[in-house]
Amino acid sequence: MIVVTTIAQVRETVKAWRQAGETIGLVPTMGFLHEGHQSLMAEAKKNNHKVIVSIFVNPMQFGPSEDLASYPRDLDSDTVACQQMGVDMIFCPTVDQMYDSYFNSMVDVDGITQALCGQKRPGHFKGVCTVVSKLFNITAPDRAYFGQKDAQQLAVIKRMVNDLNFDIEIIGCPIIREADGLAKSSRNSYLSPQERIAARCLFEAIQSAQKLIQQGEKSVDVINTEMQSIINQQPLAKIDYIEFVDLQTFKPVTRLTQDSLCALAVFIGKTRLIDNFIYQQGR
Amino acid sequence: MIVVTTIAQVRETVKAWRQAGETIGLVPTMGFLHEGHQSLMAEAKKNNHKVIVSIFVNPMQFGPSEDLASYPRDLDSDTVACQQMGVDMIFCPTVDQMYDSYFNSMVDVDGITQALCGQKRPGHFKGVCTVVSKLFNITAPDRAYFGQKDAQQLAVIKRMVNDLNFDIEIIGCPIIREADGLAKSSRNSYLSPQERIAARCLFEAIQSAQKLIQQGEKSVDVINTEMQSIINQQPLAKIDYIEFVDLQTFKPVTRLTQDSLCALAVFIGKTRLIDNFIYQQGR
Repeated sequence: MIVVTTIAQVRETVKAWRQAGETIGLVPTMGFLHEGHQSLMAEAKKNNHKVIVSIFVNPMQFGPSEDLASYPRDLDSDTVACQQMGVDMIFCPTVDQMYDSYFNSMVDVDGITQALCGQKRPGHFKGVCTVVSKLFNITAPDRAYFGQKDAQQLAVIKRMVNDLNFDIEIIGCPIIREADGLAKSSRNSYLSPQERIAARCLFEAIQSAQKLIQQGEKSVDVINTEMQSIINQQPLAKIDYIEFVDLQTFKPVTRLTQDSLCALAVFIGKTRLIDNFIYQQGR
Repeated sequence: MIVVTTIAQVRETVKAWRQAGETIGLVPTMGFLHEGHQSLMAEAKKNNHKVIVSIFVNPMQFGPSEDLASYPRDLDSDTVACQQMGVDMIFCPTVDQMYDSYFNSMVDVDGITQALCGQKRPGHFKGVCTVVSKLFNITAPDRAYFGQKDAQQLAVIKRMVNDLNFDIEIIGCPIIREADGLAKSSRNSYLSPQERIAARCLFEAIQSAQKLIQQGEKSVDVINTEMQSIINQQPLAKIDYIEFVDLQTFKPVTRLTQDSLCALAVFIGKTRLIDNFIYQQGR
């Protein structure tokens, strides 16, 4: 495994791989890797000759009041995690390497970014789309892997790839959870022991919703109220949003009569956690 | 030469070329090809094994009150022009092929688009950057060729390629002029015989400016006033802008003490024409 920090080094290696007829899978990350990331690497490993993991805490996707400065970083541990998974290259550029002082170009997806995190975190997906476009152009992968945990991000990237004709297959991978159901996230490291226990409420709310749905409930109001009541029982939790949207358009739905995404964002203390599940017709 | 209309056909052909180790030059155009475009094709032909000319009148880069509907089109004549130049592929997609009904992604360059045509034609460069990104991703060229006549467009594309890490070399090619100095443009076809004569005033203004500069004039005010007076002598002409900007930042300059672009846009009747020249220190 090689660890490279410059775009030129990536290009040189990728060019050699390409000339040898090898396919490339990219796993874009912000580092502080956990089993969620490793499941993406495993999937990438399965279907490509070479796997690149990018590690870059992208300032552009953080809002001014968000956690850019405190976002957890541990390149040594990340390097071990990648090595264990048989990754071929870590690309961990500096901010200067990615954004020169004249930098002034943005990639923006409208529509599906108007809901959920796109609404709550203005500019977030613009930052994501821009850096992912850059990473796509730098690493020229055949396939790129994103977690279903960031469901809106996955949809936005798919939309962007379709709209801008990137010749890259986008693979969404299932949410990986802790034993008690909490979705794996680098931000879980922010949680105090007490908050860590409180954080179970996100998955508990999801489970209750799924139970209601299994019992035939179609009213989003009814399901949403149940989810809210579960989370509101938890004094350390504060709901940012719980929303049901059409899986294609991300427009709100009031009844579960089409494929839908239920997404929630909840503050546990100062830590903002997200989770989601998909409702599919006839399943 | 093949003429293809679908993205899938382009990809298939490009893939075969790539596998044969052939390099690709792209000339993006809106068709109604003239000697200006042909000079780009000639340049592309010189340095690449294969040349693709895209012909697409991109609705997204026209403002609501602009000339999208009347923009001249002649695919038969364009096909002959490309054949004469030894072009290998024309890519002439429909609007539906380029933009599906869910399309919602944009590429935008800020900063240098705040001046000149970017200021006068809101959204224009966003449309240009988006379609050029798409064409880059569809044709995956080694080099792409743009005319210096659209000086701001060339600078914007270079900025975008740098910022988003497209692995493509952008080549700017000199302005091609008619015998009387008028810059070649598809829009010249709009001009009545009388307007065609009046349109000389753009190049006459440029020549006067260059003469003043040769005589040592550094004041942009003085040079600009001279250019205005020449164009204002022409009753059919109405100045949209005449501006001097720094060649890198596109910020206005008041004295010619750095590499600068002088760009002008002038309405001749209803037809908006642009032209420009570059001032380089120590030349």
